[in-house]
Amino acid sequence: MHNKPRLLTPGPTQIPEQVRLELSRDMVHHRKPYFTSMMQELQTNLRRLFCTEQPVLPLSCSGTGAMEAAIDNLFNPGETVLVVEGGKFGERWTQISEKKGLNVIKLEVNWGNAVDPRNIKEHLDKAPEISGILLQASETSTGVLHPVSQIGELVRERNTLLIVDGISAVGISPCPMDKWNIDCLITGSQKGMMLPPGLAPISLSARAWQKTEQVESGNYYFDLRKELEKSYEGQTAYTSSVNLIMGLKAAMELFFEQGLEEMHRKYWALTQMARTGAEALGLQLLAEDNYTWGLTSIKIPSDVDGQKLVSRIAENYNIVIAGGQNQLKGKIVRIAHMGYVDWTDILAALYALQATLQELGGSNRADSNYLEQALKAYEEAKQAPVKEATPKT
Amino acid sequence: MHNKPRLLTPGPTQIPEQVRLELSRDMVHHRKPYFTSMMQELQTNLRRLFCTEQPVLPLSCSGTGAMEAAIDNLFNPGETVLVVEGGKFGERWTQISEKKGLNVIKLEVNWGNAVDPRNIKEHLDKAPEISGILLQASETSTGVLHPVSQIGELVRERNTLLIVDGISAVGISPCPMDKWNIDCLITGSQKGMMLPPGLAPISLSARAWQKTEQVESGNYYFDLRKELEKSYEGQTAYTSSVNLIMGLKAAMELFFEQGLEEMHRKYWALTQMARTGAEALGLQLLAEDNYTWGLTSIKIPSDVDGQKLVSRIAENYNIVIAGGQNQLKGKIVRIAHMGYVDWTDILAALYALQATLQELGGSNRADSNYLEQALKAYEEAKQAPVKEATPKT
Repeated sequence: MHNKPRLLTPGPTQIPEQVRLELSRDMVHHRKPYFTSMMQELQTNLRRLFCTEQPVLPLSCSGTGAMEAAIDNLFNPGETVLVVEGGKFGERWTQISEKKGLNVIKLEVNWGNAVDPRNIKEHLDKAPEISGILLQASETSTGVLHPVSQIGELVRERNTLLIVDGISAVGISPCPMDKWNIDCLITGSQKGMMLPPGLAPISLSARAWQKTEQVESGNYYFDLRKELEKSYEGQTAYTSSVNLIMGLKAAMELFFEQGLEEMHRKYWALTQMARTGAEALGLQLLAEDNYTWGLTSIKIPSDVDGQKLVSRIAENYNIVIAGGQNQLKGKIVRIAHMGYVDWTDILAALYALQATLQELGGSNRADSNYLEQALKAYEEAKQAPVKEATPKT
Repeated sequence: MHNKPRLLTPGPTQIPEQVRLELSRDMVHHRKPYFTSMMQELQTNLRRLFCTEQPVLPLSCSGTGAMEAAIDNLFNPGETVLVVEGGKFGERWTQISEKKGLNVIKLEVNWGNAVDPRNIKEHLDKAPEISGILLQASETSTGVLHPVSQIGELVRERNTLLIVDGISAVGISPCPMDKWNIDCLITGSQKGMMLPPGLAPISLSARAWQKTEQVESGNYYFDLRKELEKSYEGQTAYTSSVNLIMGLKAAMELFFEQGLEEMHRKYWALTQMARTGAEALGLQLLAEDNYTWGLTSIKIPSDVDGQKLVSRIAENYNIVIAGGQNQLKGKIVRIAHMGYVDWTDILAALYALQATLQELGGSNRADSNYLEQALKAYEEAKQAPVKEATPKT
C-alpha cells in the first residue's frame, strides 16, 4: 500500500532532509581551516543546547562510549559512586563503574518510577565518601524522567559530582547543565539532535575539569583532557566523524531556528497527545507522573504478546516502534516522539496501535474518539507556557 | 575559477556518489531485521576485503579506537610487546601499550625506512617473553610499507601475536590476514573503504580469540568478545553508526565490482605515476624501496617552506594534500592516492605541485615532460601483473 516508513523508536530517529543532504556531502579534511571553523561555530549552538558556558566535546562513538569516558576521566578505582538503577541504562552505569573498579552503591527504583531525591539525600548523609552520583535524566528503557534539578541542589554544597546521562533528554526536555549543577552531561546524536548515531557530545563543569587532574584515566581513546585541548583549535583528538559533524551543524541550525523553548514545547505537546490517546484506548501508562518527553511507554494487556504487537505494527503499517527491554520485554511498547517527528506521526502510531491490538484480540475501543481526544490534548499543550521539567516526587 | 575540490589526503578520502547517496538515507533501527540482514550480508564482503575466514567487526570509532580495542582485549598489564616505531602511528602503538601497563620494547626505524625482519627475529630470539608484535602495514606518516608477510612467517611457530594496523593498507595493497598469519588486523573507514571516518573494522585470528579468554579487558565500550557475540545476530554491542553501515554496504559493492586485485592494481599504478612525476621534477622521495601504495611522500627542497607549499596549493588549485607530521613537519608533502581517486587527480596534483614550487622559488622543471612521464608510468603499471606486496629489505 506504499505505507510511508515511520521510525518512532527512541533512537535512532528520523532525520530532516536538510541534515541528510549534509551527510551526503563529499569529504573535507578534519585538520584544515574549513573543518576547524565549522567546529568552532558549532560550539556556540552546542553550548546553547546544553545550557552551559563550558565546551561541549563531540566524541566519535555511541552514547555508551561517552558514559565510559565520563567515568574513566572523573573517578579513580576505589572511589564510591551512587547509581540510580531504575532501568537498563541505570544498570549500564553500574556495569561501567564496576569495570573501572569503583565501589558502587545501587539505589534501586522500580522500573517505571523516578528516584526520590530524599533517598539520594539519605545516602549522601550516610556515606559522605560518595564522590559521584550517576543517573539518567530520562531513562529510555522505561520512559521515566528523574528529578535532576532537585538532585543538583543536593550536590551544590557537597564534594560530590553529578553525572547525568542526558541521551534521551538533551534537546527534548529541559536539562540546563549549569543551572542544575550538573558536573557532566552526555547526549547521543541519534535522539534529540536529529542525526544518525555515531557522535556523543559530552560537557564537564569547571569542578569536574579540576577533578580530571587528579584522575589517571585508563583509556587512551576517551581522553577528555586531550579532547578539550584540541577543541580550542576546532579539532578533535583523533579523526572526527566528518560527515556527522557536517550534519550536526545543519541540525543545530534547524534546531535553533525554533529555539530550545519551542522544541521543548513540541515534545511536551506530543507527549500529552500520546498519553491521552493511549489512555483513551483504555491502556495503562508505565510512567505515571514522572514521564519523559521523548517517548511514551504503554503497558500491553496481559493477553497480548507485546513483541508480536510491535512486529505486526511494522508489517501492517510500516511504523517502527520499540518494545520493552530486559525485565519489561513483551510487557510494554514504547512510542518515541523525539527528533524529527510531528503530530501526524503520533496520530499514525495511535491508529496503528489500536488497529493491531484489535487484530491480536486485545482491548478494542475503535469506536471511541481516542484520536480526537489525543489531538485536543496536543493543541492545548501547544498553547500552554512551557514549564521547566520539575517532575513530582 | 571554479577549481573543483580534490581531497588528496591520506584519509579522509573522496567518496563515490553512490556511497554518498546511501549516507543521506533516512534512519532504520539497528535492532530490526532490515539492519541485521544488511550487517550479515556485509560480513561476506568484509571478510573478502580482509582475506580472512574470521568475522570482521565494524566498531563505531576512529582507527585509534580499534587500536586500543586490540591492545586492551589481547594483552594483560605486564606483558611484553615489541613495537615497530618508524612514524607517528608506530608511536601511537607505544602510547596505547604503555597506557595499558604493557612492557614495551621499541624497535626504532628511521622515518622513511621499513623495518628489517631480521631485527624482529633478533628481538624475538633474545626476548622470548614477547607476546605481541605491533606495527603498521603502511605507516601513513611516512608512506612506508612494512614487510608484514615476512614478519608473519616469524610468528607462525611462536607464541607471539602479530597485531597489524592496516588502516592505510587494507583495500589498497595486499594484506591478506589469514595467509600472512596476522592475528589482529584493523582498518579505518576513511581510507581504502571509500567512506567517511567513524567506523573501524577489526578482525582476530582463532588464536587471538583464544587469547582474549585469558585477558581481563579494561574497557567497557571496546569489548571484542561482546561484539563477536552480537555479530552472529547481525548486531553490534552498542548502537551502530547506522548511516555509515549503509554507506559501507554500497562501498563494498562498488569495491567488489572491481575486485581486490583490480583495486590493488589501480593503487599500484597511481603510485608509479606519482613517484615518476615527482622524480621527473627533480624531487626526492622519502620512501625509497618500501613504499606504500596509498600515498607518496615527497621531500621538499630545503629552501621551500613545506607548510606554505601545502596551503598555497589549496588556495591556488583547491587541491588538498597533506604535509609532514611530527619530526617531518614542513619537510615533506604527502599526496594520497587511496579511496575514490583516479589518474586525473594525480595529474592535477603533480601540476599544482610543480607550479606552486615555482611560485615559491623552489626547483622548477616546468618545461620538462614530467606529466607525460608520469602518465607513461601509470599506463605501464596498469598492464603489469599485480605483484603481491613483498617489500625489499
